[in-house]
Amino acid sequence: MITVSILGSGNVATHLYRAFAESTEVQLVQIYGRNPTNLLAFKDKVSTCSRLEDLKKVDIFILAVKDDAVEEIIQKLKHRDAIIAHTSGSIPLSQSAKKNGVFYPLQTFSKDTPVDFKHIPLCLEASDKEIYTLLEKLALSISPKVFSISSEQRKSLHLSAVFVCNFVNHLYHIGESLCEKNEVPFEILHALILETARKASLHSPKAVQTGPAVRNDQKSIATHLERLTDEKYKEIYTLLTQSIQATYGTKL
Amino acid sequence: MITVSILGSGNVATHLYRAFAESTEVQLVQIYGRNPTNLLAFKDKVSTCSRLEDLKKVDIFILAVKDDAVEEIIQKLKHRDAIIAHTSGSIPLSQSAKKNGVFYPLQTFSKDTPVDFKHIPLCLEASDKEIYTLLEKLALSISPKVFSISSEQRKSLHLSAVFVCNFVNHLYHIGESLCEKNEVPFEILHALILETARKASLHSPKAVQTGPAVRNDQKSIATHLERLTDEKYKEIYTLLTQSIQATYGTKL
Repeated sequence: MITVSILGSGNVATHLYRAFAESTEVQLVQIYGRNPTNLLAFKDKVSTCSRLEDLKKVDIFILAVKDDAVEEIIQKLKHRDAIIAHTSGSIPLSQSAKKNGVFYPLQTFSKDTPVDFKHIPLCLEASDKEIYTLLEKLALSISPKVFSISSEQRKSLHLSAVFVCNFVNHLYHIGESLCEKNEVPFEILHALILETARKASLHSPKAVQTGPAVRNDQKSIATHLERLTDEKYKEIYTLLTQSIQATYGTKL
Repeated sequence: MITVSILGSGNVATHLYRAFAESTEVQLVQIYGRNPTNLLAFKDKVSTCSRLEDLKKVDIFILAVKDDAVEEIIQKLKHRDAIIAHTSGSIPLSQSAKKNGVFYPLQTFSKDTPVDFKHIPLCLEASDKEIYTLLEKLALSISPKVFSISSEQRKSLHLSAVFVCNFVNHLYHIGESLCEKNEVPFEILHALILETARKASLHSPKAVQTGPAVRNDQKSIATHLERLTDEKYKEIYTLLTQSIQATYGTKL
């Protein structure tokens, strides 16, 4: 049995809490959160605390807090023999604790949408082999998708995630607003959105690019640009069209 | 029983052919294609022809050909009493036939990837109510997702589809190339891609935007821009970040 406490009460903390609570190999000891109000959701199921000095000794502390708070909390934790693993995609492995680790679940979390951890990749890093082994055991208890990822690789993953998740979602929003403007239910696009995503997990996205840009359909491109009234959307259309054409060497 | 012939042998034609062949309410009469070689795939299962004058009379001709060829073929078809419905997202309802229709399946098709028509929205338009009713009957025989969409609305849908499918796929490709450059398996991002798409079908994308841009995390944004070596990708990052911040009124 691995003893674990979670520091944090946000989205990542909440979802990790749920996953660990269901794992038979994990004993969840405490949830720490600075603001006692945020801890109410956990209160009946696990011990909570809002002062770092009240944290008991465990095998692994999982730091699911804002990036800016990670180092400060590591410095303040008194249990120096425990593994302290943060969950951030963008900050490197800490050098401050005795046993440093990273436990980064690569997913977009909303508190209200339940997720199945079995499909979530966990990216691990540790300051030595022994620490890695324990983090890996913890990770495998909630997901089969466990990857050893260096700080440098994690930075690239985080950047890629901005493109394939945050920016993609903004393009969904643009599609949605174009539909609204013309009184078309956005629902009609759901199947296309899901299929496009599914395709990307079956084939290299580079190999399955479709649309006016890649086939250099100047007529459609001109019609689309004319139709777009928002200047920013026009700019986005033009830039992404150029980038697609540059990728495929389409004659401009 | 509705008698149908398909004109065209590309992706859309192939997938419609498969769907109609399985429908008990449709009798597929012929497949027309200019190039006999492209018809070989259909040859054993349905009658084929490569001359327009060899097409027999049916209730509905489905024109799954290139946009540029639609009007020319409508003009040349001798069976003027049949419904002639094109499958294009970007061209309006024709005025040339006696019975004009549109039968537009909103999906991204690849010949090798089977699709389940039950999830594909079919956008219909017709020059009168009677024609619409027959097209609707044909559509409902392969999918429950049938929508009445005007030419004007279809143009918006087509433009939206470029954003949520073609441009999204290009962002997937950018994510993939960033991963490759840093020797990270792109596979790690599959779950995130699928979840982001799934979320968009459950919530308004505007309501679930996450990432450095919307929370105005200048530190991450600066780190990301520094990390991007491709000038085009830098431009895309900057423009999409600006557009997200403009959408949410984030202080710049």
